[in-house]
Order: sequence, then structure tokens, then C-alpha cells
Amino acid sequence: MIRTDAGALRRFVTDCYLALGLPPETAALVADTLVQADLWGHPSHGVLRTFWYAARLRSGAADPLAAPVPDLPGAALTGMDGGGGMGQLAALCAMDHAIAVAQDHGIGAVAVRNSGHFGTAMYFTRRAALAGCIGFLSTNASPAMAPWGGTENRVGTNPWSWAAPAGPHPPMMLDIANTAVARGKLYAARERGEAIPEGWAIDASGRATTDPAAGIAGSILPMAGHKGYAIATLMDVVSGILPGSAFGARVTGPYVPEGLSGVGHLAIAIDIARLRPLAAFEADMARLIADLRATPRAPGVDRIHYPGEIEAETEARLLAEGIPLPRATADALRRDAAALGLAAPF
Amino acid sequence: MIRTDAGALRRFVTDCYLALGLPPETAALVADTLVQADLWGHPSHGVLRTFWYAARLRSGAADPLAAPVPDLPGAALTGMDGGGGMGQLAALCAMDHAIAVAQDHGIGAVAVRNSGHFGTAMYFTRRAALAGCIGFLSTNASPAMAPWGGTENRVGTNPWSWAAPAGPHPPMMLDIANTAVARGKLYAARERGEAIPEGWAIDASGRATTDPAAGIAGSILPMAGHKGYAIATLMDVVSGILPGSAFGARVTGPYVPEGLSGVGHLAIAIDIARLRPLAAFEADMARLIADLRATPRAPGVDRIHYPGEIEAETEARLLAEGIPLPRATADALRRDAAALGLAAPF
Repeated sequence: MIRTDAGALRRFVTDCYLALGLPPETAALVADTLVQADLWGHPSHGVLRTFWYAARLRSGAADPLAAPVPDLPGAALTGMDGGGGMGQLAALCAMDHAIAVAQDHGIGAVAVRNSGHFGTAMYFTRRAALAGCIGFLSTNASPAMAPWGGTENRVGTNPWSWAAPAGPHPPMMLDIANTAVARGKLYAARERGEAIPEGWAIDASGRATTDPAAGIAGSILPMAGHKGYAIATLMDVVSGILPGSAFGARVTGPYVPEGLSGVGHLAIAIDIARLRPLAAFEADMARLIADLRATPRAPGVDRIHYPGEIEAETEARLLAEGIPLPRATADALRRDAAALGLAAPF
Repeated sequence: MIRTDAGALRRFVTDCYLALGLPPETAALVADTLVQADLWGHPSHGVLRTFWYAARLRSGAADPLAAPVPDLPGAALTGMDGGGGMGQLAALCAMDHAIAVAQDHGIGAVAVRNSGHFGTAMYFTRRAALAGCIGFLSTNASPAMAPWGGTENRVGTNPWSWAAPAGPHPPMMLDIANTAVARGKLYAARERGEAIPEGWAIDASGRATTDPAAGIAGSILPMAGHKGYAIATLMDVVSGILPGSAFGARVTGPYVPEGLSGVGHLAIAIDIARLRPLAAFEADMARLIADLRATPRAPGVDRIHYPGEIEAETEARLLAEGIPLPRATADALRRDAAALGLAAPF
């Protein structure tokens, strides 16, 4: 494990994307989303992914020069063509347009078609919260789970996020995928020779299993059983079918270098001040958070956190301490950057 | 178990509410929501609850004559005062106003304060789907789970629903509470002398338990662990704090006869035709459903259902066969109706 400064890492990843042909603002945006995920303590969505996106830019699967614009600028609801480019750019354009429109109409929504994987949903909903809005963002994704009762992956993780300003505190944020667990946890359990809990996976024949190898050969289960299947399916409807994008098994993920993504999103912003003074809303948020924190605690629990609080605290710590990078991640970044003629800052 | 005709049951429950002072349209609405829950195979939200609401009307905790109107009629986003009345009426007014406004602006949203328990969320979002819209509805509710790591109930089940038209099929609908399991399942396990699965409940000290009695004395866990806590908390924010209603432990539930409810809701409708032809959306929905159904199945699974399909099939069956009522429910309804001078049709 090495540690690297967030600012230096952001500049390095930006330089990589500039070398790959992304315009300066898009390069800086994608780099910032990746470093931010690392800062929040979610390395699975961090700079580890830098060259996964790079492969899709190189193959032509993602258009570096896409410039998403709303179909109906200024309307409370509009579609937007992501142009087959980086999903981060489409999600940013959609969320920012929704926020601007909410300031006119009270609510704004943008349904995005022909986009790509955008990384971490709460990167974008946080922008709504910082602008005094409630933010919602959903996306569909490539197949990662079987329909409830099925044995073949036909439904994506289809993450979704809500965020809200929280007065004196960093925004309250929710950002979840609808699978019970990340696939990486099965690989880790297999490495350690441990069983996995029931409810994580089924084997290739569709039977419940606690054997990580059988689960890897089979399928990850949805979170909360059939509820997670239902949520993931509805998120596909509002993110994929509503804007007229790809859906179900037709969506291509960021883990393969080729194939148009077809991912779609739905972004909504609600202007809080249209309903009540923002200060009154924020005072209630502070009261809710105080109530949650003051709850009697279970044995071994030091503190009760509100949603998004652990991420905000991790960010503050890693800005001071530096971002930890596993040696394998650091080596791969060094090697891939060297092929672009760039030197890593770590 | 007895069986009773849905139409006769609806008239009977309507008559009960008329005798309790609800205006005819509200009486018919509340009766229809309860009978519809029974028809969907959700008796926990069915006519079993008729006289729970009655107790709150009698005590004055719920105002039978409340008449919710939007603060800003015609605006894409508006608040609405539920008037401390029946939540079913407020939810209906909010959803129908959101649908009407979506036909003007593409999207419509209503944030409801000072409402009450509305029963089954998808009763209302289905109206959006039947009107060619995507519907969303959330509510907060009285405390039912501890914050993650806590031992005292301070967060409600806070249900939420999405619905969408599904072309040749009944609407696709999602309607979930954020608890791992209904409290009634712990009572049932205790009756049978069986252990409950891990992940359902904690004991009074906050420790995980598989003993249903310890779980009853303790607290139900959220669905999907910390994710369910985060979802429930954000649903409190958008349903309770956003409209300026009660939130957290300040919300009064429908299970007690006294105390202003303070429940709030958020209703959103999105007009699909603003984004793409409704027929194209519905053709994609039919394709998605066909893909889900055609997935290879696990052993013992006869069919794969889309979200909301089981409810639609149950409704068709019970309309033909009659609604089953447990003897205890039937006896209680007969007794309480007799006190109003009314005879049950079963």
C-alpha cells in the first residue's frame, strides 16, 4: 500500500485522459469523479478504473468528443442524448440542467439516453444538495443479477442515489446498487477459503450456496431478496426505457473495451425553497441527525452515522493523510501511464 | 376462513365510514384502498384495518372533513396541506394533481404535509401508470426500526413506490417498506415455536437474535442491512422534512387511536409521451417483461414474474373466487359494524 496526495492524483489522471483525447473539462471531470470515490473510501469506483474507461475510449466504444445537450432546454422535463460518450459528462450535464430548471419550475428532470457508465451516483446528486435542492439520480447497467427465480443474469445493478442538504453537516446522501454484495467480496472469500453468508449468491443451477466458487460460477443475488430484484427492474424502466435507451441484457458495461454502452439515466432536482425556507429545512435536518446520533447504541458501536457521513469523514481524513493505493493498482497505473509517455506522481 | 365478494365488501366498508362521518367520496375511497389491498393479496393492509382508522376518526385524531388542496395549483412543484385527515385522500389528491400538472409541464410533484397513513402506496402510483405516466410516491411513518447500530426505534418503515405502464400487461409496480420483514412474521414464528433467520431482528440490547420473542422485545432490522436504514432515512427527508411535516420519532402511526399523525408524502408523475411516444415505451416494456419471463429458471420455479404481476393475478383470481377473510377478522368487523347499526354481508 502506498499513499498519494489527492491533488497530485487528480492531475495525473487528468493528464492520462488528456493524452487519450478527452477535452480538458471532461478529462478533469472524469479524474475528479474517480479521485472523489477514493476519497469517500470506495476504491472499487476509484482510480483503479482509470484505464478501464481508457480502453473504451481507445476502441471507439466511447466518443471522447460527445457534448450532451438537452432536447428541450429550459423545460421542466427533457430528454438528453449522451452522444455515446463518457457517462460522467452526461450525468453532470443532466444533473446541472435539472438544478437550473428546478430554480425556474420548482422541479427539473432530465432523462438521458445513449450515455455510459458514470461511476458514483452521489458525485452528481451531491451537486443538487449543495445547490439547495433534493437530488435524485438513477442509472441502468450491464446484467449483474438474475431475475428472482432465474439463473441467468438479465438485470443490472442499476444504482440510484438521493441527496439532501443537511444544514451544518455535509449533505445526507444515499447511493446504492441493488445487488446483495459486490462481486469482489466473493473473490475475496474464495481467496481466504471462507464460506459466504446465505443470501449472497446462487450457483449455476439457481440453488442457494455458501460456496464462493459456486457463487462466482452462478449469480449474485439482489439485496433484500425479491425486493432488490423489483427495485433494480424499476430503475431499468426509469433510467433505460423512459429515455429510450438500451435496457436489460442489451446494456454494455464498463468492464469490456468494446460495444456501445447504451446506458441511460434519470436525474431529478427539487428546489427546496419553493416549498419552505431552506433554513427551516436545514434546521429540521440538523434535528433529525441529532436524534439519530442520540439513539442508545448496541454493544461495540461507538457512534451512529447518518447516510453519507462516513464518506464525508473518510474524505477529510484522506485529504490529510493521502489516498491509499494497493501496490497492484499503483503498478498498473504506472505501467499504463508510461505507455502514454506519462509519469505517475507516486 | 370465509369468502366474501369484493363489491359487497367495498359497499360494507363504505357504509361503515359513512356512519363514522366521512363524506361519500372519501368513504368510498378509503374502502376501495382497503379492499384493493386484500385483492392484491396483502391482507395486512386490507379491511383488517377498517376500524383502526375508525378509532382515529372517533378520537378526533383524524379530521373526517379535511379537503386537501395544492398551495400553488398548476405549478410543476407544490406543497399541499393534508388537513390532518385521512392519508388516502391526501395521497389521491397529491397524485392526481401531479398527473394533471405533468400533462402541462412534463413532470409534476406534490409534497404533502400534515397528512395520515395512506395504506398501500401502489394504489396511488398505479393511477399515474394508468394515465401514461411514471409514478413515484413515498411516505414517512411512525418509528419501526433503530438507526443502524442503535437499539431504539427512531426511523419509520417509510414505504415508497414506483409504477409504470406495461403495454399489454397490467402496470409494473414496486411498493416496499424498508424493514427486513413485517413485525407479524415474528409473532407467527413465536406461535410456531420456530427460530427466525438472522438479519430479521435484534434483541433489546441491540444484539443479533434468531429468537422471535427476543426480537419482539427488541427491534426489527432494516432490509438489506445498513442500506435499508439509509433508504428509510432519505424517505423521511423527502416525505417528512421536505414538505415541512413531522419526521423521525415525531410521527404518529395508524395503530394508536390518538395523536395527530404528522405524516408527509412526496408524489411525482412524469409524462412519458413528453420524452418518446407512449406506444414505443410500452413496446419496450413488453420486450423487457418477455426477456425476464424467458430467463432459465431455478429448480422448483414455475414462472418468473415482473414486479406487480403477482398482485395483478391475485386480484383476477379473488374477483372470481371472493376475498378470503380469516374468522377473527370477519368476527371483529361484524362486531364493530353492529355497534354502528350495520350488518356485514358475510
